[in-house]
Amino acid sequence: MLADPDWRALDTLLQSYKEQATQAIFHYIPKKEPYRYLYNLIPIYPQRSGKGLRPSLCIATCRAFGGPLEKILRTATCIELFHNAFLVHDDIEDGSEYRRGEPTLHADYGIGIALNVGDAMNVLSIKPLMDNLRFLGPHMTWRVFGEIEHMVRESVEGQAIELGWMHDNVCDLDEADYLRMILKKTCWYTCIHPCRIGALVGSDGSADLDAMNRFAYYMGAAFQIQDDVLNLIGEHTKYGKEIGGDIWEGKRTLILIHLLGHCSSEEKSSLAEFLATPRASRSVKRVQWVFRLMKKHRSIESARSSAHYLAGAALREFNVAFGGVPDGAEKRFIKDIILYMVHRDI
Amino acid sequence: MLADPDWRALDTLLQSYKEQATQAIFHYIPKKEPYRYLYNLIPIYPQRSGKGLRPSLCIATCRAFGGPLEKILRTATCIELFHNAFLVHDDIEDGSEYRRGEPTLHADYGIGIALNVGDAMNVLSIKPLMDNLRFLGPHMTWRVFGEIEHMVRESVEGQAIELGWMHDNVCDLDEADYLRMILKKTCWYTCIHPCRIGALVGSDGSADLDAMNRFAYYMGAAFQIQDDVLNLIGEHTKYGKEIGGDIWEGKRTLILIHLLGHCSSEEKSSLAEFLATPRASRSVKRVQWVFRLMKKHRSIESARSSAHYLAGAALREFNVAFGGVPDGAEKRFIKDIILYMVHRDI
Repeated sequence: MLADPDWRALDTLLQSYKEQATQAIFHYIPKKEPYRYLYNLIPIYPQRSGKGLRPSLCIATCRAFGGPLEKILRTATCIELFHNAFLVHDDIEDGSEYRRGEPTLHADYGIGIALNVGDAMNVLSIKPLMDNLRFLGPHMTWRVFGEIEHMVRESVEGQAIELGWMHDNVCDLDEADYLRMILKKTCWYTCIHPCRIGALVGSDGSADLDAMNRFAYYMGAAFQIQDDVLNLIGEHTKYGKEIGGDIWEGKRTLILIHLLGHCSSEEKSSLAEFLATPRASRSVKRVQWVFRLMKKHRSIESARSSAHYLAGAALREFNVAFGGVPDGAEKRFIKDIILYMVHRDI
Repeated sequence: MLADPDWRALDTLLQSYKEQATQAIFHYIPKKEPYRYLYNLIPIYPQRSGKGLRPSLCIATCRAFGGPLEKILRTATCIELFHNAFLVHDDIEDGSEYRRGEPTLHADYGIGIALNVGDAMNVLSIKPLMDNLRFLGPHMTWRVFGEIEHMVRESVEGQAIELGWMHDNVCDLDEADYLRMILKKTCWYTCIHPCRIGALVGSDGSADLDAMNRFAYYMGAAFQIQDDVLNLIGEHTKYGKEIGGDIWEGKRTLILIHLLGHCSSEEKSSLAEFLATPRASRSVKRVQWVFRLMKKHRSIESARSSAHYLAGAALREFNVAFGGVPDGAEKRFIKDIILYMVHRDI
């Protein structure tokens, strides 16, 4: 049986890990010109109320495997910087209006400046990896580097798949297609590599990294599906994106894929027509109609149930991946994070 | 006295270097899914008729300093991939319509997909640097890495300055502002780092890299100004971008900056008003009016003369930077490239 997660302890640790990574990000932002349209804009997303999941998983896994914070902090910072760069570009790609409760960067500064700020955040994420040299030595620095190279490659592949589906208005997708896409788009950089690299550095190279893959894939998939659910039924003030934004954007979420697979053929043609309309021409009325259809066909419940199933699989694999690790606050934190993924409302 | 450049020999070498870098780029593009909106789109810009200046300078400098092609090819490939990524993002940032004679990537596939393809090209440029390890050993691989990190940082800073000027409709700039901006936006990645890294690897670390900075800065500045000139008076079929595109985009070229500094105060107010208009609202008539003003105030001639002056300075610094290097085809090629920068029509 599972003990209930200690949500308060989890929140405290999450906050503290996030704070450490955010401080480290500030350390890596040059204190020099050009400020106005570059270095002053880089802290905007990191300062908003993100959860800091990725650096938290990375630091906690390293510590659970016996490594000190000092050895993993720069890599966790790199991952968090990459994540924020990814969000800036993703918001442009999806035409999103809100992020973490406020207008997206491109909504405020235009696409050109925002795109370049995202590029700069990617550039700045290189330096912490180079600084690893002093703390990890050349061999481990190089291994971490290889992990990060794989992480960013998978992420752009995942983005390409999702953007391609929308571009071609693909309407015949199933859960397996969706899971393959989010493995690439979300899981590698949100969960798998943070945990892999944490285990790699924490165990000084002795941990079985592939055991992390299964565990963190399930956890990342549960996270992404919960994100899709919150986009529809979350509270705007907590969740921070426009509610229903995924419908406006025509995103192939598990909910939409379920709906396309379970509605009548007439409903499906109407849906395909709606999805073929350019975003700017979609109406509130039609977006609400899609939302009602999702409720009618229980697509949100179905996605929720998939997320819970995946969280269960993650818990099982957690016991394999962390089986040899002594109990402690960080191990407990990672286990609790699994349930947090599907219970969170932000 | 200067001997006339041997343009035919220069063209042959340029072609051959470009071919080697392009082949190497293809080698680094994964032969796997997702093709349709990612890996099939990456070769589009590299396959168009670019000049291959950056890999050519990098390879030729390395060889002039006594290093074999094998040791520099991967770095030259990284720089060319980065350059193409930069073009894809730059075209989105500037709202450009044509690149190398054909529609820009985002004009054909939309901003989202093109942005992600640019990101992917940046990601792919990491692998060649990692492969350097086998050919250069850990110490030199790491030094090259540091050079590239600096190169990409300068480039995003330069972009930010230029985009900021347009965003704020800055109209009081002088030649010194312009030269500081293009040092960052153009010179580091187009000339300085290709030559620095070529000399570093070719001399096995013994060359004076800072001597390259002055030489290649002058050469890069001459190149960028000639690019601004060609944008106004080049032939579309040769030059490959929309002629006058910089006026449509409101770019702060040396020509526009000269004009703003030399026209009457009435003309300046009208110009500032034109530049404050969103691109989509600018008319052919007004663009032609700006072009006529540039001719009236001899702004194009003035920019040309600056480019020639800078090319002269580059020739002088070339003799310092390459003073200790024995004569040979590659050294000659680099010297000839300086004049090519201001005589080219593509």
